[in-house]
Amino acid sequence: MRAQIITIGDEILIGQIVDTNSAWLAAELNVLGISIDSIRSIADTKEAISEALNSVPDGVELVLMTGGLGPTKDDITKQTLADWFESGWRMDEEVLIRVKEHFELRGIQMPEVNIYQANVPEKCTVIKNMLGSAPGMWFEKENRAYLSMPGVPFEMKHIFSDGAIPKIKEKFSLGNIVHQTVLTQGIGESSLMEIINDWEGSLAADNVKLAYLPSPGSVRLRLSFVNENGVDGLAIVRKKLDQLLPLISDFAFGFGQDTLEVVVGNLLTKFNFTVGLAESCTGGYISHLITSVSGSSTYFMGTAVTYSYEAKTRALGVSQADLNHVGAVSEEVAIQMAVGVQKLYRTDFAISSTGIAGPGGGTPQKPVGTVWIGVATPSGAFAVKFNMGDKRERNIRKTALQALQLLRKEIIKTVKISELESLYLK
Amino acid sequence: MRAQIITIGDEILIGQIVDTNSAWLAAELNVLGISIDSIRSIADTKEAISEALNSVPDGVELVLMTGGLGPTKDDITKQTLADWFESGWRMDEEVLIRVKEHFELRGIQMPEVNIYQANVPEKCTVIKNMLGSAPGMWFEKENRAYLSMPGVPFEMKHIFSDGAIPKIKEKFSLGNIVHQTVLTQGIGESSLMEIINDWEGSLAADNVKLAYLPSPGSVRLRLSFVNENGVDGLAIVRKKLDQLLPLISDFAFGFGQDTLEVVVGNLLTKFNFTVGLAESCTGGYISHLITSVSGSSTYFMGTAVTYSYEAKTRALGVSQADLNHVGAVSEEVAIQMAVGVQKLYRTDFAISSTGIAGPGGGTPQKPVGTVWIGVATPSGAFAVKFNMGDKRERNIRKTALQALQLLRKEIIKTVKISELESLYLK
Repeated sequence: MRAQIITIGDEILIGQIVDTNSAWLAAELNVLGISIDSIRSIADTKEAISEALNSVPDGVELVLMTGGLGPTKDDITKQTLADWFESGWRMDEEVLIRVKEHFELRGIQMPEVNIYQANVPEKCTVIKNMLGSAPGMWFEKENRAYLSMPGVPFEMKHIFSDGAIPKIKEKFSLGNIVHQTVLTQGIGESSLMEIINDWEGSLAADNVKLAYLPSPGSVRLRLSFVNENGVDGLAIVRKKLDQLLPLISDFAFGFGQDTLEVVVGNLLTKFNFTVGLAESCTGGYISHLITSVSGSSTYFMGTAVTYSYEAKTRALGVSQADLNHVGAVSEEVAIQMAVGVQKLYRTDFAISSTGIAGPGGGTPQKPVGTVWIGVATPSGAFAVKFNMGDKRERNIRKTALQALQLLRKEIIKTVKISELESLYLK
Repeated sequence: MRAQIITIGDEILIGQIVDTNSAWLAAELNVLGISIDSIRSIADTKEAISEALNSVPDGVELVLMTGGLGPTKDDITKQTLADWFESGWRMDEEVLIRVKEHFELRGIQMPEVNIYQANVPEKCTVIKNMLGSAPGMWFEKENRAYLSMPGVPFEMKHIFSDGAIPKIKEKFSLGNIVHQTVLTQGIGESSLMEIINDWEGSLAADNVKLAYLPSPGSVRLRLSFVNENGVDGLAIVRKKLDQLLPLISDFAFGFGQDTLEVVVGNLLTKFNFTVGLAESCTGGYISHLITSVSGSSTYFMGTAVTYSYEAKTRALGVSQADLNHVGAVSEEVAIQMAVGVQKLYRTDFAISSTGIAGPGGGTPQKPVGTVWIGVATPSGAFAVKFNMGDKRERNIRKTALQALQLLRKEIIKTVKISELESLYLK
């Protein structure tokens, strides 16, 4: 079964907001086994909305619309829908009560204009909006269903999840799509492709599809299978996954929507370890990733961001002689930073970064992109050298992910579990 | 003049990634005076791409496509374009050199498959991609121009800004639009609207338009004027700007594409000051913002990210008694953190953050969102309390921007220049 998403609003077309509703709806539909034919963002005009309704592609059985349902004069979606479905109007008493309540609960006098929100095309079925004043509206015409929802993300999500999904399941007999995504770090798209080339060639026979989804420092591999009658798609995808993982165990760190900072946080929590950081070239970005995870205060103690030589010696006890002789971007200093912060904050593990993020500061011996990552564990310390390229922002991001990956591998080694086993830890 | 944006890729249609490229392109086109007819996101198939090209709306003179240009097997955009424009192929020597360099610079053996990236439809004009291996491709057919770009955001932005904009300006006669954007921090859209309501009412008479562009912790105000023959749009926009700035001088911090971290960095550099940070609830994010600015090592010394009580006492000398009696989220601790890091790294200024980022950790006295920001200057120290709301990510971002704004104001006071004057400092 196929669906189309139509988002309505000039604010998207002038780049004022990023359309996150579509991605959310697409992911939800995908889980229901509904494929998205396409997503359209159109202007808030009668012409654009009518044209979009007139040109829904053949084969699309469900059209989801968001936006254009507020109380103000420039919202003409509802009027256009009434015209397009050749519908009269009715005042929906339940919606009217809901709208009045919405304002009463906030202690605000309801502006007159909001009464109009309870005026709905009589051909639609109202889908309740308990979080706002504009209701969802469900239409049907010639074996196709249409759902119009307000554009405010949390109202839209509530209407879709609580009201629309039951209706969709009732009306359509849904297939079953199986997806599995493996997350990798530290290898580029084309190198990954060479490693798994033979395995990739074997997918077609099982009707499994593969997509490479790259972002700086990380590539996600998505396996998909559209379930046919009587075929266990999950078992097939799992079989292919079991063949894939041993090929990429040096790089894989998780599945689905996981992030490396969440995976590392889970490991630290599970095995009751603490971590501290000493950041130079990453300038606090690794700390930011770690602390973006709620609950990180149970394992994350603190960081010394040390940009200057003086900060490195004063906060972390890095040797002034080493800074003078081998420089800040060196194995010696990376190790001393990691060990220094491990002592300062009394943590089990510590990682450090020191490098040349660019665009300035490179030399022939240490070009822009040279990075040392130091790791201190309960049983010792070491450092590894990388070249992260010459783009400052990417360099910082790639270094941070590499540092988290090194930390992840050291935790796994310390508790003596295998790479593969660690991926399935709960 | 009208344009359409087409983004290609299954990862958008299954909701795996949010399409941020469209919003960025839409905003860029808007500044050029080009309206967006619509945005479409379609599948990475020959059928979907051909259908999209066949159904570009009448009146659209420019089609911008992103995605589907990597080296891997699932990328078939280029082949479809060659077919649709009825074009043969040529090996582009410049692109080939560029692709080889791309890998050489990283010390990586170029995978064979990447040679195909230099194979381009002979009817296209290549637009160089200095940041990746897939080039931009410019086609023309029946008075309409088509630009295909890779989907990786930083490569796309580079190709569009550096290669495509000059070509668009050369091919189309664009109206002369004057834009000026004022950046504000620390005030919401609706409060801002109340303050500038009368001024906003005066814009229509001068044919100037205003857009509110909100993001967490910051609202940009964009003034636009479409130049008519013989009218000096720049002078008109400047006049309205001169009326606006005194109304919002508590909140304005810069113009155009500036960020608060760049503005603060410029002030620190100009007046030869240094800064250090002590971060608790922001977890390194303020440091990350400051160090994302290249050249920040001249004024940024370092940070102590102190998440635990022990880290606060050990790294910054915060009083254990105060932690026990008034708690970490307090005026006393915010001041001690700022002063502590000012001493540790011997800086002129220091800022600190301590608060409850959420979702856990709130109490009736200190609900989630309570934040103290401490500021240490060459002449003293103080702290200010805020409530940043209950969304962790927004809370961290808003606190970081507020901290940078406080720092900015203290620098300005210290060097005795006015808020307005500071906006125009170079």
